[in-house]
Amino acid sequence: MPYFDAASSLPLHPVARQALLASLDEGWADPTRLHREGRRARLLLDAAREAAAEAVGCRPDELSFTSSGTRALHTGIAGALAGRRRAGRRLVVSAVEHSAVLHAAGAHEAGGGTVVTVPVDRTGRVAPADFGAALRGDGGDDGTALACLQAANHEVGTEQPVAEAAELCAAAGVPLLVDAAQSLPWGPVAGGWSLLAASAHKWGGPGGVGLLAVRKGTRFAPPPPLDERESGRAPGFAGLPEIVAAAASLRAVRAAAEAEGARLRALVDRIRARVPELVPDAEVVGDPVRRLPHVVTFSCLYVDGEALLHALDRAGFSVSSGSSCTSDTLAPSHVLRAMGVLSEGNVRVSLPPGTTAEDVESFLAVLPDAVRQVRDRLGAPAVPPRTGPGPRDGGGAEDSGGPKGTGAPSLTVDSLGRRCPIPVIELAKVIDRVPVGGTVVLLADDEAARLDIPAWCAMRGHEYLGADGHEYRVRRLA
Amino acid sequence: MPYFDAASSLPLHPVARQALLASLDEGWADPTRLHREGRRARLLLDAAREAAAEAVGCRPDELSFTSSGTRALHTGIAGALAGRRRAGRRLVVSAVEHSAVLHAAGAHEAGGGTVVTVPVDRTGRVAPADFGAALRGDGGDDGTALACLQAANHEVGTEQPVAEAAELCAAAGVPLLVDAAQSLPWGPVAGGWSLLAASAHKWGGPGGVGLLAVRKGTRFAPPPPLDERESGRAPGFAGLPEIVAAAASLRAVRAAAEAEGARLRALVDRIRARVPELVPDAEVVGDPVRRLPHVVTFSCLYVDGEALLHALDRAGFSVSSGSSCTSDTLAPSHVLRAMGVLSEGNVRVSLPPGTTAEDVESFLAVLPDAVRQVRDRLGAPAVPPRTGPGPRDGGGAEDSGGPKGTGAPSLTVDSLGRRCPIPVIELAKVIDRVPVGGTVVLLADDEAARLDIPAWCAMRGHEYLGADGHEYRVRRLA
Repeated sequence: MPYFDAASSLPLHPVARQALLASLDEGWADPTRLHREGRRARLLLDAAREAAAEAVGCRPDELSFTSSGTRALHTGIAGALAGRRRAGRRLVVSAVEHSAVLHAAGAHEAGGGTVVTVPVDRTGRVAPADFGAALRGDGGDDGTALACLQAANHEVGTEQPVAEAAELCAAAGVPLLVDAAQSLPWGPVAGGWSLLAASAHKWGGPGGVGLLAVRKGTRFAPPPPLDERESGRAPGFAGLPEIVAAAASLRAVRAAAEAEGARLRALVDRIRARVPELVPDAEVVGDPVRRLPHVVTFSCLYVDGEALLHALDRAGFSVSSGSSCTSDTLAPSHVLRAMGVLSEGNVRVSLPPGTTAEDVESFLAVLPDAVRQVRDRLGAPAVPPRTGPGPRDGGGAEDSGGPKGTGAPSLTVDSLGRRCPIPVIELAKVIDRVPVGGTVVLLADDEAARLDIPAWCAMRGHEYLGADGHEYRVRRLA
Repeated sequence: MPYFDAASSLPLHPVARQALLASLDEGWADPTRLHREGRRARLLLDAAREAAAEAVGCRPDELSFTSSGTRALHTGIAGALAGRRRAGRRLVVSAVEHSAVLHAAGAHEAGGGTVVTVPVDRTGRVAPADFGAALRGDGGDDGTALACLQAANHEVGTEQPVAEAAELCAAAGVPLLVDAAQSLPWGPVAGGWSLLAASAHKWGGPGGVGLLAVRKGTRFAPPPPLDERESGRAPGFAGLPEIVAAAASLRAVRAAAEAEGARLRALVDRIRARVPELVPDAEVVGDPVRRLPHVVTFSCLYVDGEALLHALDRAGFSVSSGSSCTSDTLAPSHVLRAMGVLSEGNVRVSLPPGTTAEDVESFLAVLPDAVRQVRDRLGAPAVPPRTGPGPRDGGGAEDSGGPKGTGAPSLTVDSLGRRCPIPVIELAKVIDRVPVGGTVVLLADDEAARLDIPAWCAMRGHEYLGADGHEYRVRRLA
């Protein structure tokens, strides 16, 4: 049963399991104690720190084991901001950082700090020039304390220009924190970063283990309360066998990274090429080349992401989705939003090491039917789109006149209260009922509409005239 | 090789190991995901939460799994203080809470809050009347937001009156947070607490797992940054097999708690009775009855705690110590300080389940010689103390006259720069060189002297006249 959600979490790597089991007998004692059990635990911890530091590319005394990647990010950001308090209170982040970074930024803002968000292009990539401009700020007198940039995006796989960002940061005298959660298993982060965070369960280590590296010379004030463990950067008694397993498996995946990365990269290329051929109205997003080897994301017009997830799950494939319907907040993924791409029917496929070509072909074999089923259930427009008026499911109402003062024919569809992808489906169903040049006014209060209606217009070749509150205007062109 | 540091950390319980191994195959996925791997992980987490909640005595939705007991305390205190911000900014803690509580209190104070510390008696116990008075405050207009009281002390084993404290808190409308780290394996915490924290490695669960219970109706604002896991109370991806193991082993130790507690209680009684008989000038501290079943602490005059730890370690016994020489800060344990008892030569014996009477007898057999060795190496006064003047090791200097204006004979000993237990040893060596009624002035800048000189006076029957900076005055009485 293929599991294609590696970017979320991986099964325990055999080396991690072996290391975990081997250290259960000695890894339970408190490594700060002076007795033999404590000393043995300390030896395990020291060895794990050396191994992990080597893989990260830092000194052992620069590396702390935290209780998760999220904690590494929270602590790294808070500690660097506090350590640089005198330099200023401005924090620079990309728009597509992991939510742990954005939530830490939110906490900084709530505490009176400033957050500057650097946009991305449609592939999800930050432009170094934009990053540099954000570092310099707007000429106000608040200096930049810290900048954060992920090594590669967790949802669409796009790599960020971290080495260039690090150079810009060095020139500006600003420390750079790199979230390497997705990239670290594939190789060390290039360039002169100051802080780095990662998460063991992304490479087959256990849950509950993160890494935080703080390079010597980086000002850092560990967030309170005080705790003496891990240089004050990770309060509390950690699971030592888990730390040992995390370090051992990082070395193991690194040893195989080049070959396995090349293999998975080819499989992802196959998915990137075949999905648009197999699934009508599917859009593959993210940078096709500068990307993680194992991640590919696409979205399918007129599809409910959660329903598609369940359909694929029934067919034996586990994937994830950034569609609004799969989120507790009913908002589409902030990554897709920042990229300005379609969010409905979104699927992230992230291949674990060992995925075979047969697994991928099986997935490609079941995907079209899974999408079709969901579209059929939703009464989505047939593909290719009908040229004449279709049956009415929505609340479409023909207006006698066009928008005020224009005189052009217009039609209003009321999708208020309907969730993604219904508003877009209703729009698609009525577009042919206005003549070319005519306008459809769509009323929709679903948050995904903001993203998906412009995306639909771009895919269908109609003109998106903009939104006024919940009122979207689309001009039929084709 | 007997390990007598159970209160620090316990080896993995067989049930924990079994549960850990059994859940490695399913416990790696993200329990918030919708796919089958996520759902299976979720089932494990839900079952663990139910089991742990039952043992704690709360509802499953009141219980969060944190990454450590320390994190549970930090988050519990910060969240309750923030939730009760409008009620006031006063935090009440006992003087003998775990350092995690005191550090959280320190962070609160640094942020502008007020901390009221309730003293303890010589057994380490808080008087309910003092606790009640602290809740009411000094009539100022800052209300009490939260009170913290441990169920039992981690260093001396003394139980606190938590049920009475909870009643006082309820009457005052103040939530009570109970640190149950040491007591939870032995039974649920009595009384109407509002928040409870515990730590799995104290009962043979894995490291890296803590519990935080927040009873319904308790105002609580999770400390930022925001995170959706565990009701916002434990950011990051946790080790699920470890959580399962923690819950399973808590049930297992609870099932055996009554019988094992009674057995260990008798062994501790034996140690409490025999140590003063076997070791001259040893003081057993903590409440002899209202105590944890497995913990006993004693201190030995003229003994270097670290040297004693090493001597016992060489003899095959692992214990811990609250002596200043075993601490990074070179300060004696805040618990011993709050109790006002001797801190030098301090040993905490905490028996793991399964400890045999033979283990205890072996310990009692080696202890006297271990103490003697350390005393001999330090040139400690012979026991019973010599009646005539002994050889001079210290910087003693006979003064021609007594302290200004008194006319009584006096002698000054300079122990500046010497570490515990040397100042007390030097004092003991010269006391007989002044006549009864005469005074010794001891110059000492070691922090332990503040505690150990008065304690020595009480043990030896001399009068402690007080300290002025680094100058201690002792009047010879016997």
